Amino acid sequence: MEKKIAVILGDGIGPEVTQQSIKVLNCIAKQFGHRFIYNYGLMGADAIDKTGSALPEETITTCLDSDAVLFGAIGHPKYDNDPTAKVRPEQGLLQLRKTLQLFANIRPVNTYSSLEHLSPLKSQQLQGVDFIIYRELTGGIYFGKKEVNADYTEASDLCSYTKTEIERIAHLAFQSAQQRKKKLTLVDKANVLETSRLWRKVVQEISKEYTDVTVDYLFVDNAAMQIILNPGQFDVILTENMFGDIISDEASVISGSLGLLPSASIGVSSALFEPIHGSYPKAAGKDIANPVGSILSAAMMLDHFKLYEEANLVRAAVDWTLNSKFVTKDIDPVNYYFTSTIGDLICDYVTEKI
Amino acid sequence: MEKKIAVILGDGIGPEVTQQSIKVLNCIAKQFGHRFIYNYGLMGADAIDKTGSALPEETITTCLDSDAVLFGAIGHPKYDNDPTAKVRPEQGLLQLRKTLQLFANIRPVNTYSSLEHLSPLKSQQLQGVDFIIYRELTGGIYFGKKEVNADYTEASDLCSYTKTEIERIAHLAFQSAQQRKKKLTLVDKANVLETSRLWRKVVQEISKEYTDVTVDYLFVDNAAMQIILNPGQFDVILTENMFGDIISDEASVISGSLGLLPSASIGVSSALFEPIHGSYPKAAGKDIANPVGSILSAAMMLDHFKLYEEANLVRAAVDWTLNSKFVTKDIDPVNYYFTSTIGDLICDYVTEKI
Ligand SMILES: [Mg+2]
Ligand SMILES: [Mg+2]
Repeated sequence: MEKKIAVILGDGIGPEVTQQSIKVLNCIAKQFGHRFIYNYGLMGADAIDKTGSALPEETITTCLDSDAVLFGAIGHPKYDNDPTAKVRPEQGLLQLRKTLQLFANIRPVNTYSSLEHLSPLKSQQLQGVDFIIYRELTGGIYFGKKEVNADYTEASDLCSYTKTEIERIAHLAFQSAQQRKKKLTLVDKANVLETSRLWRKVVQEISKEYTDVTVDYLFVDNAAMQIILNPGQFDVILTENMFGDIISDEASVISGSLGLLPSASIGVSSALFEPIHGSYPKAAGKDIANPVGSILSAAMMLDHFKLYEEANLVRAAVDWTLNSKFVTKDIDPVNYYFTSTIGDLICDYVTEKI
Repeated sequence: MEKKIAVILGDGIGPEVTQQSIKVLNCIAKQFGHRFIYNYGLMGADAIDKTGSALPEETITTCLDSDAVLFGAIGHPKYDNDPTAKVRPEQGLLQLRKTLQLFANIRPVNTYSSLEHLSPLKSQQLQGVDFIIYRELTGGIYFGKKEVNADYTEASDLCSYTKTEIERIAHLAFQSAQQRKKKLTLVDKANVLETSRLWRKVVQEISKEYTDVTVDYLFVDNAAMQIILNPGQFDVILTENMFGDIISDEASVISGSLGLLPSASIGVSSALFEPIHGSYPKAAGKDIANPVGSILSAAMMLDHFKLYEEANLVRAAVDWTLNSKFVTKDIDPVNYYFTSTIGDLICDYVTEKI
């Protein structure tokens, strides 16, 4: 198989973690006889410094011309602390998401027995945690009409959804459930919100096409409790934009380290894969950042290419490093391995050298 | 001091837990020379059974004529499971909240060292947890305009806030912070929502009147993480209706038992005090329900009457029962005490018999 991958290294630790993913992808390519062609693009503070724009036209073209985008992280304190800055690194990512119409943000949540001590939850809560959140990313209240009155004593935000917006992500979530434990939980607030009632109606209709998937419904306030009380109950969670923002960030702390967590954003024109962590400028260039979030994002990209065996091999390699205590400084500040060493070890596992 | 208290026993375990609160209030009255006059009103399934209405006019009059309302719980499965039921118990409470214009819902979150084993969080997360959430209760998206289009392919909900709505609850929250650790955290999503930016602006303005209180701001998705990662950092959390719904339910699981948690709802015309737990019909009449949530709600009512010494004594009595392992069946299924015994023990402590 041949695939064109747009690579955006970005800022801070973005480049060094993404380089480990490329290392691993190259090992996979060699092992399975694929060809991955990388086209690099600029975005974020790096792009502002070099071109004046947070997302140069060339990067957009590269992304649209690729089968997928592999992205590191963006953001730099020199822009955060400058209120006069006209262009901000984060604008690049927002604009790219819009251009690629990335309507579904997907975040898996797993726990690792070797990392249980890092979780804020007790060990009994962590058993069997393996779920995935499908968050709608381009609709809802974050993108609705915003108004303020003349003397700024009133403000409003409109939350709206269309059937089409709900359908396209619901199909992705149901298809994912079919490949997993065949359970889908819609998180909404249908006892109060009209948009939630539309979500529920559309999901109920679509569920008829996926008779092997069990559907249940959970109010968002209850979901916020259940994610702590019994996260092992979930398989696929489907939800709208703002609920997904809150619930997926809440769920991200379960595993004990943000450095481990990947994400995928599926769009109309392309798909983008990135770790959920930020650019963490303080660690940049020190070879201490955790590359696992990026490498697992690359595994999600392999899934997206339907290279399931390859994706599972990468995940098995990551499991092996974690269980063998080959971890970076964020996980074990005393006995730690370098970013590049973790990348090498995962490659060795993939190519059966270990 | 003489106070008129409207008492709504409600459904399920509502009557038996509320009776313990009245027992404790009577002991407090005797000990401190106060007079509490109770006027009983019907609401919920009990009211539907007896009058056909979930909130009879008489109950409203009783509540409006009182200094505060002490409420148990409502809800009965015979109405939940009947989709044809025209009147639902919960409508009574919604209507009462509206009538009394209860604009601020207040929920304290505490942990007890003797109950750490019940919490889903690790013991290190639970140290020093003592915060209180002020949730706006009558505005925002839950009460905004709701629309659907003709063929039901689009739906919308409007979230709106006025300066006045924000100010009245913000003053309560700042005043509470002044009596506590002098820290107020506004939870919003000001990087995205216009209503959140209005909240932030109004809170910034009001903060000038409370110079002894430190104010910080947290995005709701980050708040959902911090409540699990480091709940000890909070003192007073102030937030809008929907964020408060999610965050306060999430926070309610920290202590390890919903049966312990009280709440207050402050209104224009009155104030209502109730445990956060439901009517739990399966346990009704067995003298096994946990009365602590109701008794701590009564303590919040004493605070509302500015009877701080009395309120603190009730809380000390509750602490003593929990630390002495005088607990109901929900806390310890083996060595447990009856609902009424817990009430008696708290009374004994209050009247210095213990
Ligand atoms: Mg977020
Ligand atoms: Mg709730």
